[in-house]
Amino acid sequence: MRVEPFRLTATKALEAFHQGDLTVEDYARSLLDRIRERDDQVGAWIYLDGNQVVEQAKALDKVPKDERGPLHGVAVAVKDVIYTKGMPTQHNSAIYADSKPEIDAGSVAMLRQAGALIFGKTTTTEFAANTIGTKTANPHDQRRTPGGSSSGSGAAIADFQVPLALGTQTGGSMIRPASFNGIYAIKPTWGSVSREGQKIYSLDLDTLGWYARTIEDLELVATIFALKDDQIPRPLPNGVTGLKIAFLKTMVWNHAGSGTRKAFEDGRRQLLEAGAEITDIDFPSEFHSLPALHTIMLFSDGRVSFLPEYKMARGSLAADLVEHVEEFHGYSRKQYLDACDAIAALRPKWDAIAEQYDAVVAPSVPDVAPEGLERTGSAVFQGFWTALHVPIVNVPGFRGEEGMPIGLSLVAGRYRDQALLNVAREVAKVWAPEPLGLPENGR
Amino acid sequence: MRVEPFRLTATKALEAFHQGDLTVEDYARSLLDRIRERDDQVGAWIYLDGNQVVEQAKALDKVPKDERGPLHGVAVAVKDVIYTKGMPTQHNSAIYADSKPEIDAGSVAMLRQAGALIFGKTTTTEFAANTIGTKTANPHDQRRTPGGSSSGSGAAIADFQVPLALGTQTGGSMIRPASFNGIYAIKPTWGSVSREGQKIYSLDLDTLGWYARTIEDLELVATIFALKDDQIPRPLPNGVTGLKIAFLKTMVWNHAGSGTRKAFEDGRRQLLEAGAEITDIDFPSEFHSLPALHTIMLFSDGRVSFLPEYKMARGSLAADLVEHVEEFHGYSRKQYLDACDAIAALRPKWDAIAEQYDAVVAPSVPDVAPEGLERTGSAVFQGFWTALHVPIVNVPGFRGEEGMPIGLSLVAGRYRDQALLNVAREVAKVWAPEPLGLPENGR
Repeated sequence: MRVEPFRLTATKALEAFHQGDLTVEDYARSLLDRIRERDDQVGAWIYLDGNQVVEQAKALDKVPKDERGPLHGVAVAVKDVIYTKGMPTQHNSAIYADSKPEIDAGSVAMLRQAGALIFGKTTTTEFAANTIGTKTANPHDQRRTPGGSSSGSGAAIADFQVPLALGTQTGGSMIRPASFNGIYAIKPTWGSVSREGQKIYSLDLDTLGWYARTIEDLELVATIFALKDDQIPRPLPNGVTGLKIAFLKTMVWNHAGSGTRKAFEDGRRQLLEAGAEITDIDFPSEFHSLPALHTIMLFSDGRVSFLPEYKMARGSLAADLVEHVEEFHGYSRKQYLDACDAIAALRPKWDAIAEQYDAVVAPSVPDVAPEGLERTGSAVFQGFWTALHVPIVNVPGFRGEEGMPIGLSLVAGRYRDQALLNVAREVAKVWAPEPLGLPENGR
Repeated sequence: MRVEPFRLTATKALEAFHQGDLTVEDYARSLLDRIRERDDQVGAWIYLDGNQVVEQAKALDKVPKDERGPLHGVAVAVKDVIYTKGMPTQHNSAIYADSKPEIDAGSVAMLRQAGALIFGKTTTTEFAANTIGTKTANPHDQRRTPGGSSSGSGAAIADFQVPLALGTQTGGSMIRPASFNGIYAIKPTWGSVSREGQKIYSLDLDTLGWYARTIEDLELVATIFALKDDQIPRPLPNGVTGLKIAFLKTMVWNHAGSGTRKAFEDGRRQLLEAGAEITDIDFPSEFHSLPALHTIMLFSDGRVSFLPEYKMARGSLAADLVEHVEEFHGYSRKQYLDACDAIAALRPKWDAIAEQYDAVVAPSVPDVAPEGLERTGSAVFQGFWTALHVPIVNVPGFRGEEGMPIGLSLVAGRYRDQALLNVAREVAKVWAPEPLGLPENGR
């Protein structure tokens, strides 16, 4: 039986295009059919023009074989805080209703240049800066949030509506939706990928990331973005056997619910049984203030970032963003600088810890996606990593309450992104040996 | 005799509008006349549409008096790496010829919301990222560079073509043109003003700044951008008398030519005579590597920032930017991180030094504007300050070779921007007691 094209990972779609088994147009129509079938339940898109997609697909089919890019024809969803030529970028803000800057973000330009089919725009919380839910539901259970702020990107991947999607993380906005939706995500090292054309919340925290349904697909995009460590990681022919993996509950472990506690335990046991060398570690006490420091940095940066919108249209700005601008939090400039400096001092210290292991495992989220679409859940397990600028990969494979997916974070030191993906590939074989399938209600 | 409107500072223009002595339209026409008269010699603009300016001006004249903003009618030039609705943003790059992102940068949005007349776009070196000259000449001597990368903004202010202009600094791109053109500039604390819609070269270095012909005008814009210290600085009724001013030659003093050496000496003597308490200080030796660290950070960030353009159109990118992307410099990720971490550790140390003084005086540039328009001069006296994230104000008032202007930098600790402007106002009364006049060949 021929696999329906919408089910293909990016890598498999590329193979099919290359072998002439599939046209980009047929592929695009299959994805559009899938979206049409599921959109009422999932609602991942804030802008999608089927005709525009088919036109792009037809144009890609006409590109001579020897001129095709490394992502030729592969559909990519773009979070709606990232500029895209020919499509609006609305930031889930009335201030930018139908705003169409007619320029590609740096990330989108690189994908487009590589031949990607820029599919449409996925939902985001307002400016990717708060936790007020969007119209998007979790594909695994429509009563639950898909997480945020990259809500639509996470849901679209989990629901097989596209194989690749861009998101952003300032607190936990890449990794939380990945865990809630049961998919793979990478938040690479801060500063390693162009942020041109991506809405600013925090200069020091915002990070572009991407979603996929396999590690291989994450690596495909990493190559397009030229993500590169100093040393090319060595292949791991023995899987996780002999890998040094640390397990770190973190300073906010008290927030971990039953789903995360069980995933952490099961993940640890599975790796041990598969031959990994497991070490349980703790953060040195000087790291314990990191979550508080992240908050000071974030809210203070929000004061600057949303001042233009505040001046233009205070009444159209979410209450919590108004509070940032009005300094409701009361953080002084001095407290802000102390937070910046303290975080900066901890970064190399974390790198030195991480360097002792092939990867560090930590919780991605407190638990499975909570019920209700009003809020997108807690970033408590991610903000401090974002502040440390480190690469994080969410690996799915676990189940919590009512069979909802849950993942764990693999973390490394800064600019060990390739090494981390290399290890994640092997860890994923242990934790998620079967290919990700359609959500149970997805068919 | 009635002053020609083009000669007005922003503050004086506001007064004239307020008193009904001048319409925005007449004001705009006066500036346009001035530009028309001088454009052949100076060439500050890359985009200027007189009709569009007059239409904006007419619309502003129609705004009821009680609805007018704090910058009502004041003309502002915008460096062409900053987005402006209704105008192209071309970055001095063939890749963006006629590119017109229909969105205002955060800074422009705040100015426009305050009633400013967004006049046009001023020249920049390519992406504000190298020192290859533009078509713009120094208004004081057309054989000489106006500096860069904010070439057109600096020249337009000095030539009385507009009273306010936005620029950016990543190395020395705000302060160098200020010194070369004999005007005032502030590069505020990094992160203190929205960078939304401003081309990224370095996340950790890029800073928006602005030019004017008085400190008062710099303060006017600072208010619009809500630049605020923890403590509101106290008035200085005794001028510089009793102020603690440090003089710091910096670790690159060997680059100082006769103009800067004389300005430094004269500036010091004048402040001493005016009653300031002068202390000569040196950087502790751990600061000596800062210029090298700044270069590592800058070139490495350039690798990421220009990768999209490199992929789209390598042949259209300046050779030095291609080198950044191709890692011609050979800096490893490890060297980059070490540079980031070392710079971050020095920031609070500088703040602690600066805190002991009301301001620190340092060179702005090696010397007066060099001859030739091919290169925009050296940022050697600025890059390390930019890396430290500190506010810097250029105060003019000195003359070097052939009577060319030269300025000195006033520097403070981070988030002491208001205090620094407060001191700069008094220092300027000593160094530049007369209002800035037209360039000698400007009439």
